[in-house]
Amino acid sequence: MVKVGIVGGTGYTGVELLRLLALHSLVELSVITSRADAGTPVSQMFPSLRGYVDLPFTHPDEAHLEQCDVVFFATPHGIAMSQTRALLDAGVRVIDLSADFRIKDIAEWEKWYGIAHACPDLVSEAAYGLPEVNREQIKQARLVANPGCYPTAVQLGFIPLLEAGLAGDTHLIADAKSGVSGAGRKAAVPTLFSEASDNFKAYGVSGHRHLPEIVQGLSSVAGKPVGLTFVPHLIPLIRGIHATLYAQIKTDVDLQAVYEQRYAKEAFVDVLPEGSMPETRSVRGSNHCRIAVHRPQDGDTVVVLSVIDNLVKGAAGQAVQNLNIMFGFPETTALNVLPLLP
Amino acid sequence: MVKVGIVGGTGYTGVELLRLLALHSLVELSVITSRADAGTPVSQMFPSLRGYVDLPFTHPDEAHLEQCDVVFFATPHGIAMSQTRALLDAGVRVIDLSADFRIKDIAEWEKWYGIAHACPDLVSEAAYGLPEVNREQIKQARLVANPGCYPTAVQLGFIPLLEAGLAGDTHLIADAKSGVSGAGRKAAVPTLFSEASDNFKAYGVSGHRHLPEIVQGLSSVAGKPVGLTFVPHLIPLIRGIHATLYAQIKTDVDLQAVYEQRYAKEAFVDVLPEGSMPETRSVRGSNHCRIAVHRPQDGDTVVVLSVIDNLVKGAAGQAVQNLNIMFGFPETTALNVLPLLP
Amino acid sequence: MVKVGIVGGTGYTGVELLRLLALHSLVELSVITSRADAGTPVSQMFPSLRGYVDLPFTHPDEAHLEQCDVVFFATPHGIAMSQTRALLDAGVRVIDLSADFRIKDIAEWEKWYGIAHACPDLVSEAAYGLPEVNREQIKQARLVANPGCYPTAVQLGFIPLLEAGLAGDTHLIADAKSGVSGAGRKAAVPTLFSEASDNFKAYGVSGHRHLPEIVQGLSSVAGKPVGLTFVPHLIPLIRGIHATLYAQIKTDVDLQAVYEQRYAKEAFVDVLPEGSMPETRSVRGSNHCRIAVHRPQDGDTVVVLSVIDNLVKGAAGQAVQNLNIMFGFPETTALNVLPLLP
Amino acid sequence: MVKVGIVGGTGYTGVELLRLLALHSLVELSVITSRADAGTPVSQMFPSLRGYVDLPFTHPDEAHLEQCDVVFFATPHGIAMSQTRALLDAGVRVIDLSADFRIKDIAEWEKWYGIAHACPDLVSEAAYGLPEVNREQIKQARLVANPGCYPTAVQLGFIPLLEAGLAGDTHLIADAKSGVSGAGRKAAVPTLFSEASDNFKAYGVSGHRHLPEIVQGLSSVAGKPVGLTFVPHLIPLIRGIHATLYAQIKTDVDLQAVYEQRYAKEAFVDVLPEGSMPETRSVRGSNHCRIAVHRPQDGDTVVVLSVIDNLVKGAAGQAVQNLNIMFGFPETTALNVLPLLP
Repeated sequence: MVKVGIVGGTGYTGVELLRLLALHSLVELSVITSRADAGTPVSQMFPSLRGYVDLPFTHPDEAHLEQCDVVFFATPHGIAMSQTRALLDAGVRVIDLSADFRIKDIAEWEKWYGIAHACPDLVSEAAYGLPEVNREQIKQARLVANPGCYPTAVQLGFIPLLEAGLAGDTHLIADAKSGVSGAGRKAAVPTLFSEASDNFKAYGVSGHRHLPEIVQGLSSVAGKPVGLTFVPHLIPLIRGIHATLYAQIKTDVDLQAVYEQRYAKEAFVDVLPEGSMPETRSVRGSNHCRIAVHRPQDGDTVVVLSVIDNLVKGAAGQAVQNLNIMFGFPETTALNVLPLLP
Repeated sequence: MVKVGIVGGTGYTGVELLRLLALHSLVELSVITSRADAGTPVSQMFPSLRGYVDLPFTHPDEAHLEQCDVVFFATPHGIAMSQTRALLDAGVRVIDLSADFRIKDIAEWEKWYGIAHACPDLVSEAAYGLPEVNREQIKQARLVANPGCYPTAVQLGFIPLLEAGLAGDTHLIADAKSGVSGAGRKAAVPTLFSEASDNFKAYGVSGHRHLPEIVQGLSSVAGKPVGLTFVPHLIPLIRGIHATLYAQIKTDVDLQAVYEQRYAKEAFVDVLPEGSMPETRSVRGSNHCRIAVHRPQDGDTVVVLSVIDNLVKGAAGQAVQNLNIMFGFPETTALNVLPLLP
Repeated sequence: MVKVGIVGGTGYTGVELLRLLALHSLVELSVITSRADAGTPVSQMFPSLRGYVDLPFTHPDEAHLEQCDVVFFATPHGIAMSQTRALLDAGVRVIDLSADFRIKDIAEWEKWYGIAHACPDLVSEAAYGLPEVNREQIKQARLVANPGCYPTAVQLGFIPLLEAGLAGDTHLIADAKSGVSGAGRKAAVPTLFSEASDNFKAYGVSGHRHLPEIVQGLSSVAGKPVGLTFVPHLIPLIRGIHATLYAQIKTDVDLQAVYEQRYAKEAFVDVLPEGSMPETRSVRGSNHCRIAVHRPQDGDTVVVLSVIDNLVKGAAGQAVQNLNIMFGFPETTALNVLPLLP
Repeated sequence: MVKVGIVGGTGYTGVELLRLLALHSLVELSVITSRADAGTPVSQMFPSLRGYVDLPFTHPDEAHLEQCDVVFFATPHGIAMSQTRALLDAGVRVIDLSADFRIKDIAEWEKWYGIAHACPDLVSEAAYGLPEVNREQIKQARLVANPGCYPTAVQLGFIPLLEAGLAGDTHLIADAKSGVSGAGRKAAVPTLFSEASDNFKAYGVSGHRHLPEIVQGLSSVAGKPVGLTFVPHLIPLIRGIHATLYAQIKTDVDLQAVYEQRYAKEAFVDVLPEGSMPETRSVRGSNHCRIAVHRPQDGDTVVVLSVIDNLVKGAAGQAVQNLNIMFGFPETTALNVLPLLP
C-alpha cells in the first residue's frame, strides 16, 4: 500500500481527495494536516466521510510527512514551494495541486502571484501533470504540478487544433465559466450564497492567474507563442467548468475525426458525437472531460465546448490520476465514479 | 451473474438504478425498457453513462423480461401490478419502486391512487422493502415493494421512539421537505426551473399519497394505530429529503442511546452525535440515512431530524440494497458510494 | 420632507432600506454610515442603486445623525442601544432593525445575546413594531423595535388562533424555513454558495435568539405564557421565510373566517382562499405576508402556512411601514412594490 | 387613460407586463386573454398580483381587442401576424413581443421559423422597437416589433463599436448566457428544475433564431453585412442575460469615452466605470442594460460585457418603454423600478 499524506485537508480539493482516495484500493491514507483544526476528526467537519475516513486532522508540525510515499498539497500557493524540497530529499514524491510549480518562467510566475519563488530549480524539474500531454514525464516524476481547473478544460479543448496546426493561433478566445467551488472554501463576501446565487458575472477580465498557465501549455503544443483572450465567469452552481473556445480555422478538415483520433486512447477525455453540446452535470463528480467541436454555419470560426468537474478533472481527480501514473497503477483506479445525474 | 431488467429506464429512479448497477460486480444489466425511446442508446439520453452502459432502450414488447433473474419497476403506479404476476410465474423476482404493492389495505390504496388494484393477492404477499424493519422477510421474498422516499425518511426517524413506546402516538407531526427530483422527470409547469427555483412552498397539505404508507408502517411498529399530520414541502434543490419530526415524549430516557442502539448494526442508518443537525448534502448520492435526535429546552417535545437522498435511500439505492438482500450478496455491494460534497 | 439617516448601510437590510426609500416621495435620504467603507459611493458597492442613490457612505463620527428626523439602525445587536439615547435626546426618532429593544425581559435578552444591556429603561419605552398588533403605540413612539424576520412570520400566523383562544397554547410548533439572506452579508463559511446551495438543514434546534421574541409576542396576545417549539431551517434561496405552524384546536370553528376577519383591514397581510398554499416567491421583494390555514383530514391539528420576504416584511419593509405610521403618512407609501415573479 | 389589451397573459412576458403595467399611472388594463384559462382570475394563477390586478383571463373570442388603444402580443410566434392587420385596421396600435415582425427579410424569417408569413407588408411597416436606435420611428409607429432578449443585449453592446467603424466586422463573437425564464413557461423536460439547476450548457450552437435578428441589426448600424458567431448558453438562474462580446479593434481610441457618449442620453443604458464587470443581478427586475468595455492586456481584442433582465429590457420592460414612446409619455413611466438585490 502506498502511504499518502495530504497537506491542507479542509478545503474543497482536500475533501475531494479524501472522497476519491477513501475507496482507492492501493493506497492508505496516513495523515491529513490542518493547522487550525488539528485534533478534529475529519468526519466531524465533513460528515459525508463518516465511516470512510477515521483520521483526525494533524498539526503540520506533527505530521511526519517524510514517512509518506507521496504527499498531496491542497493548499493556497506559496506553501508547497516551501516544503517540497525537504520531502523530495526524504524520498517522498509530491503532487502539488496549487500553482507553485506550474509556470516555468519564474519571472512570469512572480508577476502573477506577487511573491518570490522559493525554489526555481524545482520548477524546472516538475512535470506538468496533464496526462494527456505529459504522461511519460509524469511516470518518472518526483514532483508533479497538477494543472489548474480552467487550464485543464481550455487546453484539452484547444490541443487537437493547435497540435495539428489547423487554426490561427494569434486570436484564440476562451470564454470560460466556472462553478463557485472553484473559489475555494474560504469565507468571503463575493462567494456568499446571497451574492453568487441567481447571479452571473465575468471576473478577472483584465488578467487572471490561469492565463499564463494556459498560454504556456498551448504555446508548447503549438510550437510557438499563441495569443489568447481569456474571460472567466462565475456560474451559480457548485461544480463544473464550461469552456467555450473560439478559433479561426485555416484549412478544411474533418474536425470531428481529428478530435476523436487525438483522444482515442484517453480514458478520461470523451469526444462527443457531432452536434453534441456537453453539459457540466454530465461530468459532475467524475474525472471526465467531455468535448464537442462545431463549425456554426460552416464558417471559418471553430467553436469547441469542453466541460469538466473543476474539483475532479480540474483538481483532485487529476491528482489521483497522476498518482496512479506515478506508481504504475491502472490509470482509472479509484476514478471509476459515475457522474451524479440529476 | 444475476441478470437484471429495468422497466421504465428514462425517469430519475431509472437512471439512478443504472448509475448504481453499472458498477455492481455481481449483476449484469440485461435489458432496460422504454416505450417512447426504444432503440435509443441509454447513454445518448444520459451522457453521464457513456462508457458504462452500452444498452439501448428496448420496447417493452421485445424485452423478454422473463429471461431475467430480477426485474425492477421504475414506473408510475399502475404498471407493475399489471405485469408482476406473469414475471413471478416465470420465476423472476420483482422489486417494484412504484407504489403498487406498498399499501396492504386495498381499499385505502384504491382511494389514494384512484384506480382498481389488479392483483390484491400479490399485495399481501409482497414484502415491504424497508430492510431496517423487514430484512428477514425481504430475504425470502419473490416480490418487494420498495418504500416511498418520504416514508423512508419519516419511518426511520420515528421507529426507535415508537417501537419502544416512548412517545405519544396520536399527534405525531412530520414536517417534510423534498428536493424537486422527487417529482420525477416529467414535463410539468410547477417543477420548471423558473417556478421551483428561488422558491419554497408546502404542497399536498390536505392529503399526500405517502401519508397512508407512513401511517401503516408506524402503526405496525407501534403496535396500534397512530395519528400523523404530514406536511410535505418543495425545496429548491435536486436531491434530498429532510424530515423534521415532532412527538411528545412520555418518559425521561436517554434518547441518544435509544437511537444509537436501534441502528447499531445498520450499514445505512447513521445516528449522528448529540447536538448534530444533518444536512441533505451529507447523503447526496449515497444510500445513507443520517439522523439526529433533540429535546429543545429539555421540554417534552422531541425533535428528530432525518435526511436521505430521495433517489438513493429513497428509491434506487434502497432497491439495490433489497436486491443484495434477496440474492444473498453483501448488503453494501455497489452502494459503497461516497456522498458528493460540496 | 422627513430627513432619514441609516446606520449600517452595507448589509442586506441596509441596501433594502435604500431600495425602498429611494422611491419614497415623502422622505429624503440624508446620510448612510459605514465605518469600513466611508467615502465609497453607495452605488459603487451596490450598482443596482446607480442613478437612484447618489450618497457616499459616511463615517459614523461625521454623520451628524442628530440632524435627521429619524434614524434606522441596520446593524448587528449592541450598536443601537449605545447610540439611541443621544438621538432621542436630540429629538430624533429611532427605528431599530436589530434586536436591541425587542425583548422586554432584560435578563432574558442578556442571556440570549450574551452582553449587558446599555439602556433597560429605553427597552420598556420602545414600541414593538408589529403594526398589525401595535399600530397605536407605534404612532406615538419615539423608539420602535422592528421585529425579527422569523418572529414576524410566526406571530402573524399564530395571532388569530391565540387571540381568540381557539388553540391549545402549551405545545405550539413553528417549523420555520428561511432563505440565506437572513444570515446577513457577512463573510462566513456556512453561508458560502458552495455550502448552502443544493443543501437543506435545520439549525439552532437547541435554541435560537428569535425564540424568546416569538414567545413574548404570542404570550402577549394569548394573555398567558405559551409553550413553543421553534425549529429554523436554511433554504437554498436568497429571500423568503416559510413558517409551517402546528397547533391543536380546541373547538370547531370556521378558521378561514377567523383569519380573514382578523386581517380584513390590514394592507400587508393577505389571507389566501381556503386550500391555498402560499409560495415564498409570491412575496419576493414585497412587504406582504400571505397566510393560509388548513385542517388536514379534518383532524384537530391546525396547520398554518405563513410566508414573508425576510428582508422586506421581515426587516426593511416593515421598518418603512413603521416610519409611515410614525409620521402619519399613508401606510403603503413606498411599499407599493409588486413581488418579482418569476 | 390608454386602454391596454394583452394577448397571451399566462406566460412569463405576460405576467411581467402585468407587474409593470399594474402601477402605470397613464394606462388602464382592459383585457388579458388566455384560451386555456378563460374565466380564471389572473391573480389566482399569479398570487403575486393579488390586490393589483383584478381581471380574469378572457377567451380570445370575447376579448373585443379592437376597443383597446394598444395591444401587446405576449404569444409564441405565428399568432400576432394573424391578428395584427385587423387590429391596425380598427385603429389599435400593436406591440408584438414575439418574433413575427422582427426580420425584414421574409425568406430569412420563414427559413428560421418554419412557417409562411401571413402579412409581409406589415413586416416592412413595423418599427423595430429598440429605442436606443429607432426612437423616432417608434414614435410614429402603428406596429412595433419588440426585440428579442439576446438581440437587445448583444446589439446594445456592439452598437458603439460598429456605428463608429472601430472594429473589424467579419468575425464578431457573441458568447451569450441566459437565465431559464427565457425559455418561457411551457412544460418541457430540458427546463425542469432537476435538469437545469446545478448545470450549465451551450445550446443552439449550429444556429439560433436570434442570430438573423442580431445580424440584421448590427449590419444596419455598421452600414454593411457583418459576420457573427453567436453561441447561447443556459445559466441556472431565473432572470438575466450576460453577453460577452469579442471584436478586433482597428484603431487606438478611448473606448470608454465612445461608449459613454453613445449612451449619455439614454435612461436605460448604463455604461459602467472603466474596469467594471456588470452582474446580472444588478438589473434584476429593472429595465436597465449595464455595459462595460475592456481591452485585456491592452491587446487588439475588445471585450464588451452587457447585462439585461431578459424579461424586462429583453421583453416586457422594453415593450412598456415602447408604449411610452408611442403615446408621448415620459419614457420611464412605470419603469422606475429598482433592481432586487440581493
